[in-house]
Amino acid sequence: MRVLGIDCGTECTGYGVIDSDGVAHRLVAAGAIRTATREPLGRRLAAIAEGLRQVIAGHQPASVAIEEVFHAANVKSALKLAQVRGVALLVAAEAGLECGEYSALAIKGSVVGYGRAEKRQVQYMVRSLLGPGTPDQADACDALGVAICHAVTLSSKTRLEAAV
Amino acid sequence: MRVLGIDCGTECTGYGVIDSDGVAHRLVAAGAIRTATREPLGRRLAAIAEGLRQVIAGHQPASVAIEEVFHAANVKSALKLAQVRGVALLVAAEAGLECGEYSALAIKGSVVGYGRAEKRQVQYMVRSLLGPGTPDQADACDALGVAICHAVTLSSKTRLEAAV
Repeated sequence: MRVLGIDCGTECTGYGVIDSDGVAHRLVAAGAIRTATREPLGRRLAAIAEGLRQVIAGHQPASVAIEEVFHAANVKSALKLAQVRGVALLVAAEAGLECGEYSALAIKGSVVGYGRAEKRQVQYMVRSLLGPGTPDQADACDALGVAICHAVTLSSKTRLEAAV
Repeated sequence: MRVLGIDCGTECTGYGVIDSDGVAHRLVAAGAIRTATREPLGRRLAAIAEGLRQVIAGHQPASVAIEEVFHAANVKSALKLAQVRGVALLVAAEAGLECGEYSALAIKGSVVGYGRAEKRQVQYMVRSLLGPGTPDQADACDALGVAICHAVTLSSKTRLEAAV
């Protein structure tokens, strides 16, 4: 199954596409959509939407996933992030795709096997799971982590349903 | 000048279009886009985007305005609202329109002349400024308040610049 993971950010939105059966994962594409800080927010959101639409059109994922907004740290930046999330959810829905949402805890748990893992441990595991060619770029790597979490979750769900 | 005001909400997004010279305001259209509570968020955002695109295409506003997110009350609902705001900002930007953002204080100040006015005072003033035909519906009325605030602000700015 082909999965697109998105790591939302106002300045830099990471994306990662993988093919996965829930156990073995193969890197398809990953990168980041950067926006100009001077631009008004609306135009930055339009650039993010356009970038995500191109990724979806180019790689045809069967499912999409994003991280839930974490608001304990800083409400103001969480609100900014939520606006980007709204755009990501919209683009996925307009492409006819369901969008999974995962907490940072769930993503770390899926990728590292430990929900309280550090960010760099997640990135290390993403690279070791996907092998050479995985970008060093943090936002792309985080997006790939979201994609892996979604692929693992979907596959467990399918297998559980088949077993019942 | 034709102005579109948007009152963002996950369940109900109000819109109001007015023609205004900054002093006299005329109602063009107002209403609300309702979304089905059972639908996943992505599809609700898609319905809101589609509704706003139709309003813009049908009434061709020259400028758009929305209310800033107020996050003191409830962070969780503010984050939900921010996602809708992201979609509204995106739709405006994709239509090539600038989008003004105003605090509740600024909107109340413009419409009622008093920033700490109650919500129903704003609605009363909106109705009395725009006359018969103004909808009773709260979200549409709030959106018209945002539009009036934007029209007044833009017109003051233009007159100040002309005076300098």
